[in-house]
Amino acid sequence: MNPKFDELKNRLMEIYDLTRAGAVLEWDQETMMPPRGGQARAEQLATLARLSHEKFTSPEIARLLDGLRSYEASLLYDSDEASLIRVARRDYEKMSPVPAELTAEMTRTAAIAREAWVEARKQSDFKMFLPHLEKIIVLKHRYIDCFHPTGNVYDILLDDYERDMKTTEVKQIFEALKAELVPLIAAINSRADMVDNRCLYGHFPADKQRELCLDIVTRFGFNTDSWRLDPTVHPFTTSFAIDDIRITTHYYEDFISAAIFGCMHECGHGLYDNGSDPVLERTLLCGGASLAWHESQSRLWENLVGRNHAFWKYFYPKLQAAFPNQFKNVEMETFYRAINKVQPSLIRMEADEATYGLHIILRFELEQEILQGKLRLQDLPEAWNAKMKAYLGVDVPDDAHGVLQDTHWAWGSFGYFPTYSLGNIIGAQLWEKILTDIPDLYTQFEHGEFSVLREWLCGHLYKYGRKFTPQELRQRILGGPIDVGPFIRSLKHKYNEIYGT
Amino acid sequence: MNPKFDELKNRLMEIYDLTRAGAVLEWDQETMMPPRGGQARAEQLATLARLSHEKFTSPEIARLLDGLRSYEASLLYDSDEASLIRVARRDYEKMSPVPAELTAEMTRTAAIAREAWVEARKQSDFKMFLPHLEKIIVLKHRYIDCFHPTGNVYDILLDDYERDMKTTEVKQIFEALKAELVPLIAAINSRADMVDNRCLYGHFPADKQRELCLDIVTRFGFNTDSWRLDPTVHPFTTSFAIDDIRITTHYYEDFISAAIFGCMHECGHGLYDNGSDPVLERTLLCGGASLAWHESQSRLWENLVGRNHAFWKYFYPKLQAAFPNQFKNVEMETFYRAINKVQPSLIRMEADEATYGLHIILRFELEQEILQGKLRLQDLPEAWNAKMKAYLGVDVPDDAHGVLQDTHWAWGSFGYFPTYSLGNIIGAQLWEKILTDIPDLYTQFEHGEFSVLREWLCGHLYKYGRKFTPQELRQRILGGPIDVGPFIRSLKHKYNEIYGT
Repeated sequence: MNPKFDELKNRLMEIYDLTRAGAVLEWDQETMMPPRGGQARAEQLATLARLSHEKFTSPEIARLLDGLRSYEASLLYDSDEASLIRVARRDYEKMSPVPAELTAEMTRTAAIAREAWVEARKQSDFKMFLPHLEKIIVLKHRYIDCFHPTGNVYDILLDDYERDMKTTEVKQIFEALKAELVPLIAAINSRADMVDNRCLYGHFPADKQRELCLDIVTRFGFNTDSWRLDPTVHPFTTSFAIDDIRITTHYYEDFISAAIFGCMHECGHGLYDNGSDPVLERTLLCGGASLAWHESQSRLWENLVGRNHAFWKYFYPKLQAAFPNQFKNVEMETFYRAINKVQPSLIRMEADEATYGLHIILRFELEQEILQGKLRLQDLPEAWNAKMKAYLGVDVPDDAHGVLQDTHWAWGSFGYFPTYSLGNIIGAQLWEKILTDIPDLYTQFEHGEFSVLREWLCGHLYKYGRKFTPQELRQRILGGPIDVGPFIRSLKHKYNEIYGT
Repeated sequence: MNPKFDELKNRLMEIYDLTRAGAVLEWDQETMMPPRGGQARAEQLATLARLSHEKFTSPEIARLLDGLRSYEASLLYDSDEASLIRVARRDYEKMSPVPAELTAEMTRTAAIAREAWVEARKQSDFKMFLPHLEKIIVLKHRYIDCFHPTGNVYDILLDDYERDMKTTEVKQIFEALKAELVPLIAAINSRADMVDNRCLYGHFPADKQRELCLDIVTRFGFNTDSWRLDPTVHPFTTSFAIDDIRITTHYYEDFISAAIFGCMHECGHGLYDNGSDPVLERTLLCGGASLAWHESQSRLWENLVGRNHAFWKYFYPKLQAAFPNQFKNVEMETFYRAINKVQPSLIRMEADEATYGLHIILRFELEQEILQGKLRLQDLPEAWNAKMKAYLGVDVPDDAHGVLQDTHWAWGSFGYFPTYSLGNIIGAQLWEKILTDIPDLYTQFEHGEFSVLREWLCGHLYKYGRKFTPQELRQRILGGPIDVGPFIRSLKHKYNEIYGT
């Protein structure tokens, strides 16, 4: 063993513990904390963020990373040791230009903004949230100013979630996506009344929803030895260890889809984190390669598994048993068509697979306008509503169903949204590979069997954690760049069956 | 303002944030964490403990504390500033002889032992827990060896919970207590059949218990803006801020007393933490003066309030409404006598006020024997059972109802138990003062009114947090030393009414 490597590893583990402690505090804030605990929590989170930042950007880490160059070169590229050094160096380079105090201030501001967002959303009043968002954007600019200008300020934020991805690249992908989606949605809209989704609305007690959700995700890989499912305002997933995975959901008692598909989505994130090779535990190689890769898993389990016909052959009788009054006289085909109805709507998280992309493109464009100073924050609700009308044809009735629906901006997560659509696209690319490797996949779904799929994903993706860059993974697993083809093919195939388009 | 003081305060706030983050992680471990998260959690807790220890015992803190001596002398003794310097100096002196690595190792070992204890208790098998306890005791000795010998190794541990208290002093107090309790219990035992407590056993759904518990503690001061109540294996209270108080309880569905009196007990702890002067927020002056003072509040709210006759005049109809089948035909007097039945029993937490002290004396004696090397750990269950027979006359059926019943040893909390009985005694001393100051206290209880009591306790005790030493508080509030007189008078008065002793 190399003593310098051991020292680096030990220092990184200490830093990792601090970041995981911060994650526990954030999870608690989102699921458990009484509201008046917010102020102290913001300070605690800021302290943890500052300390881990200080420790990561310390001269000792720089010295070790430098001193380990020849050791790293002597190792296999994909060995655990070389990967740890490589990923730590990249993280160091991204973090070292930023003062620890700024990291602390961004963390503190976000934790306070999150509480304000919950209240503003409850009251459906963007003005309550505005001063917090203003502060977040001021800090974002201070953050961007830490780096060499790239010609596009948005590149720096995007890179935080999707390493090396450029705004122009996302634009190209989204243009290709839009070019396919707009005519597809138009064609479907002209046949809108072919699908009736009224069966999804009714009365669904939260405890019954929870039981069914647990039944589903347990088949995916959730187990109470290593996972929890808790209610929250805005669903998310986090993990504190490979075997401590926390997924969350929100139950609407008048609408069945949100919690069920939301749980599958979050479970997809959880499976990715839970699938890291155990030897990576407590190192920064745990987790996912990037947000787009992470969302590829959430969206894959939510849509390619959860909205699949074979899936419901197994689960529909269970749904009927859980809500007999609602579903006893509803045919499975009716339900299957309902959950796949394409319908321009207000809420991103509840959108169908086709219109979902337009919700993302809207946010992607607004974020750029905000950061380029082309849109004043006080005008954001109006801009939001105008784009919703233009892209989806819907009228936004209030801020809660518009600009305040997502929690991301309260956490300062600008640059995150595009990764959802990139995830949809990557997920579909993966799916074509999977169907080749597992020809009887849908037959397995009909029997409630998902472990072969999970093992495929573990073996090809999850186990590597953060070892490889997003591009390296694309090359290794997909054999090429991001391509909207499979995603569009998948949608066209499904909607052709349902709408005859 | 003094810049050195500001620097000290800022450094202490950072350390305080780390300790509170650790408290969140411990709370999560006890209430939420899936079992396989334990190993990583132990590392996270160890890292937080080591960092806060390193930061507290750093040369900078030493230099600041030293440089602030004349500033401190220029301030009023009970000013916030002087108190912060004084208490920080004391904490520094207690912490600086101990290596940070040892603190980390004790923390890691305890977090792992806690998981082993849960499992050992479930299986009622002390042998499963033994290796963990052995490691804890080895570390305790390493800890004790950090300090100048005092003639009694137990003194050092006791001092961690009850500053400046000596083992000999506790022995004297406990001798006085035993001298009164033994004949009192004997006299009552000869009239044991005068009280029938069968009404406390039956079927009590946990959700109904929870509702009633919340109803009670809400009257005490619990509110959902700043508090939570969660189920756990072994009840405890913790706080992450003055307005983020977490109490916990355990519901037995066949026995009503444990959760109800347990909740009042934990609420007493919570009220103390919640009552710190808000200007003390995020400083180490938040919280309680010592464990005996803390237990004085848990035991006061549990027993002097919760087992009081006037209290049940208000709450008994609510209990009847919650459990009509069980209580509709039970007179309130029967219930009141039942909850005050003196009966030697196996479980400390469920013991009546008279026999409770014997449970504590047993643990106090065993802890000393263990730490003085007079009792081998593998012989502990036998020693436990023998003392239970000798002091309480009961036969211990298994480890779960004997040596494994409490979580304290798993957390390495040796020296903690005596503070429960000291708390009972101090609580009774306080109570005599309170009854003088609030003559119509019991009339208030009959109307479900507890805010005058809470305000008295806030004004005389809670608001000071850790500003004063346990002795200073005794002098200020009680006007003298610990005295078993009021506690014994209170028991004799109550049992005279119930048993005619």
